[in-house]
Amino acid sequence: MSKHVYKKIEIVGSSPVSVDDAIKSGIEKASESVHNMQWFEVGEIRGDIEEGKVAFVQVTMKVGFTVEG
Amino acid sequence: MSKHVYKKIEIVGSSPVSVDDAIKSGIEKASESVHNMQWFEVGEIRGDIEEGKVAFVQVTMKVGFTVEG
Amino acid sequence: MSKHVYKKIEIVGSSPVSVDDAIKSGIEKASESVHNMQWFEVGEIRGDIEEGKVAFVQVTMKVGFTVEG
Amino acid sequence: MSKHVYKKIEIVGSSPVSVDDAIKSGIEKASESVHNMQWFEVGEIRGDIEEGKVAFVQVTMKVGFTVEG
Amino acid sequence: MSKHVYKKIEIVGSSPVSVDDAIKSGIEKASESVHNMQWFEVGEIRGDIEEGKVAFVQVTMKVGFTVEG
Amino acid sequence: MSKHVYKKIEIVGSSPVSVDDAIKSGIEKASESVHNMQWFEVGEIRGDIEEGKVAFVQVTMKVGFTVEG
Amino acid sequence: MSKHVYKKIEIVGSSPVSVDDAIKSGIEKASESVHNMQWFEVGEIRGDIEEGKVAFVQVTMKVGFTVEG
Amino acid sequence: MSKHVYKKIEIVGSSPVSVDDAIKSGIEKASESVHNMQWFEVGEIRGDIEEGKVAFVQVTMKVGFTVEG
Amino acid sequence: MSKHVYKKIEIVGSSPVSVDDAIKSGIEKASESVHNMQWFEVGEIRGDIEEGKVAFVQVTMKVGFTVEG
Amino acid sequence: MSKHVYKKIEIVGSSPVSVDDAIKSGIEKASESVHNMQWFEVGEIRGDIEEGKVAFVQVTMKVGFTVEG
Amino acid sequence: MSKHVYKKIEIVGSSPVSVDDAIKSGIEKASESVHNMQWFEVGEIRGDIEEGKVAFVQVTMKVGFTVEG
Amino acid sequence: MSKHVYKKIEIVGSSPVSVDDAIKSGIEKASESVHNMQWFEVGEIRGDIEEGKVAFVQVTMKVGFTVEG
Repeated sequence: MSKHVYKKIEIVGSSPVSVDDAIKSGIEKASESVHNMQWFEVGEIRGDIEEGKVAFVQVTMKVGFTVEG
Repeated sequence: MSKHVYKKIEIVGSSPVSVDDAIKSGIEKASESVHNMQWFEVGEIRGDIEEGKVAFVQVTMKVGFTVEG
Repeated sequence: MSKHVYKKIEIVGSSPVSVDDAIKSGIEKASESVHNMQWFEVGEIRGDIEEGKVAFVQVTMKVGFTVEG
Repeated sequence: MSKHVYKKIEIVGSSPVSVDDAIKSGIEKASESVHNMQWFEVGEIRGDIEEGKVAFVQVTMKVGFTVEG
Repeated sequence: MSKHVYKKIEIVGSSPVSVDDAIKSGIEKASESVHNMQWFEVGEIRGDIEEGKVAFVQVTMKVGFTVEG
Repeated sequence: MSKHVYKKIEIVGSSPVSVDDAIKSGIEKASESVHNMQWFEVGEIRGDIEEGKVAFVQVTMKVGFTVEG
Repeated sequence: MSKHVYKKIEIVGSSPVSVDDAIKSGIEKASESVHNMQWFEVGEIRGDIEEGKVAFVQVTMKVGFTVEG
Repeated sequence: MSKHVYKKIEIVGSSPVSVDDAIKSGIEKASESVHNMQWFEVGEIRGDIEEGKVAFVQVTMKVGFTVEG
Repeated sequence: MSKHVYKKIEIVGSSPVSVDDAIKSGIEKASESVHNMQWFEVGEIRGDIEEGKVAFVQVTMKVGFTVEG
Repeated sequence: MSKHVYKKIEIVGSSPVSVDDAIKSGIEKASESVHNMQWFEVGEIRGDIEEGKVAFVQVTMKVGFTVEG
Repeated sequence: MSKHVYKKIEIVGSSPVSVDDAIKSGIEKASESVHNMQWFEVGEIRGDIEEGKVAFVQVTMKVGFTVEG
Repeated sequence: MSKHVYKKIEIVGSSPVSVDDAIKSGIEKASESVHNMQWFEVGEIRGDIEEGKVAFVQVTMKVGFTVEG
């Protein structure tokens, strides 16, 4: 079995709808440029408030992917 | 451009439904007495269990707002 | 009023759907073997990614229950 | 069952006697102006030293109370 | 000298009197079912407030004990 | 000697100039409405970037003050 | 695909030889009573000193395993 | 309103002069290769000492920027 | 007003009686060799268990004192 | 002396043998694509368990390198 | 190349002027009694407030130096 | 049984070989000037990289020893 090496990047997904949607939105956007993503770890959950209501949820995530080659 | 000063308060929103609903519930209740809220930061997510099921989700948040004047 | 003593265990619930579903799934599974569960505290939220999409959300929780007798 | 919203404030109680007395002293002083206090969480325990002896114990606490209305 | 292996459990002791009493109460209750307890580590100190006074102090502790056999 | 009780609030000072100026700006603004401020504790230092340069430094601080009466 | 639920326990492995040996020692001892162990997370690394030399290395680990059934 | 996704990188700026200069130096250097930088978060502040004096201040920062496209 | 410089050392006080006694015991012992102690900050509270009872409470503290001269 | 700017990336090295081998494995793999690496900081140490034994050790590290130019 | 061993002490520098001045003040004072200081790490930044203005900035730092011999 | 008081110092051991060797190296060097060392706690593990390889591992440890007399 080979010795895998992974790299982790940090992204922030956002959504006007929910925490889950912000997570999915961030992962799917990242998948456009990063291949072989394996897992994510949620860091911070925060958001913007406009006129007394939650306008956007922002979720900071670390995403791990296999270094190819 | 002026030097803004913000104040942060800590609130706990709760919901029998979901994490997102607890966040929204807390922000909307706070908006009744706090003006100019700009952002929130989720701290702790916890909840009550009754008869082996999640009864309430409680989300602790810091809420930042502009100090007027 | 008696002096209650509680014990806390750590579980990980998972769901292909959402953070809330992972929480509920973990609590309900734990309730099959643990009685008198009173509260939970979310620790880590992470998940698996497959083909550029969130495949599973995993939520680590501490669960507190009353020690009987 | 209604959706409760709580607010948390941070106070520092002090006592020349003990950690417990500093906790009680802080809570009782806070109760003069804050109603419906439900729980406290101890943050930092520190103190002043005078002439090689503990002069004052200071306990930082977050105090949660129900937002009325 | 043998290679010891220890296990740690997490308990919450409570007391209407003091932090020390909550610690002792939790350890003594745990000793009814756990043998060979060696040490404890205090995590969180919190409590309930009733009518503006400390009603109960709750101390979360990890307790380490020798795994027999 | 009396048993002092302190309260802590959290503010964010900002400045286009420096960390020190953001601290001073926050404290001086807070002094307009809060009396008897005794000390501050820096939490987070962050800022806004515009056109590749630091536009604003924001310093989150806890400020402790004596509860009067 | 089923919704897995995991449980985590905390153990301390020790070794007079090395950090790696303490990890292995702890995991192998735990495997005598816990089945389906999937992963471990190192918490604290500490040790005993005797006569100015490292006598024992102790490694605290959380160990995750699948809840059966 | 679109769902923004941000990426965060970690840089260390250094300066023989001051914390502020190290922050600015790091941000301006990063702006040569990273576009659309929006905010920074200071992590660690440390430095080198030479002959009993501060020779260099080093400031670790996370920098967030909009993912284009 | 002069620019004070303080130094901090870390000590562990212990007591078979209480947390407060362990704090006092540590400070008073330290005062035999350290002068001008000004304040202490409690870090870790732990203890030894013997025969199912708390045998010793150990409190780790940082102690700050003025550097003379 | 010039003002250096460093960048930090996060990698995970793995090894079936030891913590040290996982560190070395990760650094050497990273050196294939990253130049001027200066230092590393170990974050998390975890691993996979197969059939009651440590199968792989995984070490998360931040790696700092000089930004050229 | 020899195996270096370093020792770290913790100091608090203070200044009525700025964070940078408090850092420099602490390091220079420490250099009177500690030799071979190599680096510092900023821990806490706090300060005293007098009459609604920052009176003193206090910066806690760990300072590393080579153990001679 | 007497009330023991311990003091803790912070050291950094280094080694071109391994984490274990850096721990041992630091403890043995410290034993030349510190007596009655009882335990150590690993803080940070980091290291230097030269030409794409681990050149030195550095392990920060707190070391506890009995205060005599």
